[in-house]
Amino acid sequence: MTFRSQLKIRFGDIDRAGIVYYPRFMHYFHVAMEEFFINELNIQYHEVIDKHRIGLPTVHLETDFSKPFSYGDDIEVEVVVQNVGNTSITFGYRVFKQGDTQPRIVGHNVTVCLDMNTFKKMQIPGWLRERLEAQL
Amino acid sequence: MTFRSQLKIRFGDIDRAGIVYYPRFMHYFHVAMEEFFINELNIQYHEVIDKHRIGLPTVHLETDFSKPFSYGDDIEVEVVVQNVGNTSITFGYRVFKQGDTQPRIVGHNVTVCLDMNTFKKMQIPGWLRERLEAQL
Amino acid sequence: MTFRSQLKIRFGDIDRAGIVYYPRFMHYFHVAMEEFFINELNIQYHEVIDKHRIGLPTVHLETDFSKPFSYGDDIEVEVVVQNVGNTSITFGYRVFKQGDTQPRIVGHNVTVCLDMNTFKKMQIPGWLRERLEAQL
Amino acid sequence: MTFRSQLKIRFGDIDRAGIVYYPRFMHYFHVAMEEFFINELNIQYHEVIDKHRIGLPTVHLETDFSKPFSYGDDIEVEVVVQNVGNTSITFGYRVFKQGDTQPRIVGHNVTVCLDMNTFKKMQIPGWLRERLEAQL
Repeated sequence: MTFRSQLKIRFGDIDRAGIVYYPRFMHYFHVAMEEFFINELNIQYHEVIDKHRIGLPTVHLETDFSKPFSYGDDIEVEVVVQNVGNTSITFGYRVFKQGDTQPRIVGHNVTVCLDMNTFKKMQIPGWLRERLEAQL
Repeated sequence: MTFRSQLKIRFGDIDRAGIVYYPRFMHYFHVAMEEFFINELNIQYHEVIDKHRIGLPTVHLETDFSKPFSYGDDIEVEVVVQNVGNTSITFGYRVFKQGDTQPRIVGHNVTVCLDMNTFKKMQIPGWLRERLEAQL
Repeated sequence: MTFRSQLKIRFGDIDRAGIVYYPRFMHYFHVAMEEFFINELNIQYHEVIDKHRIGLPTVHLETDFSKPFSYGDDIEVEVVVQNVGNTSITFGYRVFKQGDTQPRIVGHNVTVCLDMNTFKKMQIPGWLRERLEAQL
Repeated sequence: MTFRSQLKIRFGDIDRAGIVYYPRFMHYFHVAMEEFFINELNIQYHEVIDKHRIGLPTVHLETDFSKPFSYGDDIEVEVVVQNVGNTSITFGYRVFKQGDTQPRIVGHNVTVCLDMNTFKKMQIPGWLRERLEAQL
């Protein structure tokens, strides 16, 4: 069973065209990733940053949007680990309207493991790699 | 002449009711304050934080909104210094649609001077106090 | 028992000073109000707008912030109805760190009942007044 | 000369890692596109939506981020028209730190021309196609 984060579209997420402002989906992806960390990887994302001093900035993203979302739609954001490289992690995302079988949005983000003290790339540490690979 | 920051309302600032989502005005206030620092106090706000290690968190705010703004409205956010206390600074804000003489939004924020290294209140340093008082 | 909405502070809610960017609290207030509508008033807020064509723009707000919040803090936003006028509704908000007995943020918003078709003030309709007054 | 929009990174655009929260770049892209419309296509984007009743939702985006931005960085967002299809327009974006010759972010968005009254795809109208093709 892949992980899904249940989110609600909020009043302020809507743009002048009456649909969700597309940058908000990048925010939803991040929120869902934060939920994925605590629910699936068994660590709070703020501990990754503040305690382990590891950052995961996005270096590449691709997203397809096939149908807009409106205020009042309840959504599910699916998060999967698609690849674990030496220093990079690729997260896959799909956004469903609750109850739908077809996603309306499909994307992935390549993130890179960063030492927050030096802001340099680093190898994914063993404890994190193990948990990520268990998701493949 | 009081300082005014020229801002544009953006496509993504609109809410489901078709007007500017009111938390965005608090963001506009902050943006206008950042412009006020460089234009009137002669220092970049990021230097205040990063170089002088001073933060100015809001501890009290009051705002009146008399008329909404729509996408396409160009606005002017007036910033004034209303009070300089021992550790606190009160900024006043008024938001005008360009060309209007009456503001649609009037508010003020009390901020407190914080030592960013200790996160404790501190006296406003002389160099900042001087520049602020010159605005009264 | 007053209503409380459980929210998480998100990675992107933090500002350059390392604490929650204060306009985000206005967003949290709105999110909590949306939750209050469905949980306490028994109607989705999007139905108020889209079906009943009623908007509730904020015309006055006051907020006190006594202590900042950081990434990783779980919060509870309490929502109460403080006043029901002829055309206005005042919502009270208090924000707690989970487990705390003292709120860190206390505020209220006066909103006005707006006919979304004409954008003119209107009397609060009976069905809504009843539900709001039951909360006083 | 390609069009560039001058933007400032704001205090509230920063995330817990101390760099610009990446969804903000999607917002910057949109802001730069709004500026591109008035400066290069000679029409306000809000007129496209409100007067011509045309929307341009993003259906595909790809972005590469090679270096993060910090608070205090002034940026230039370059906007070009990369392709004009029957119903789609592809905008290319590059984000530079002011003074740099190499962009830190390179991306493009495919948008689709939507009739805002029916929310159905439509052919790009002649007046808009002409202006877009003049940019190729």
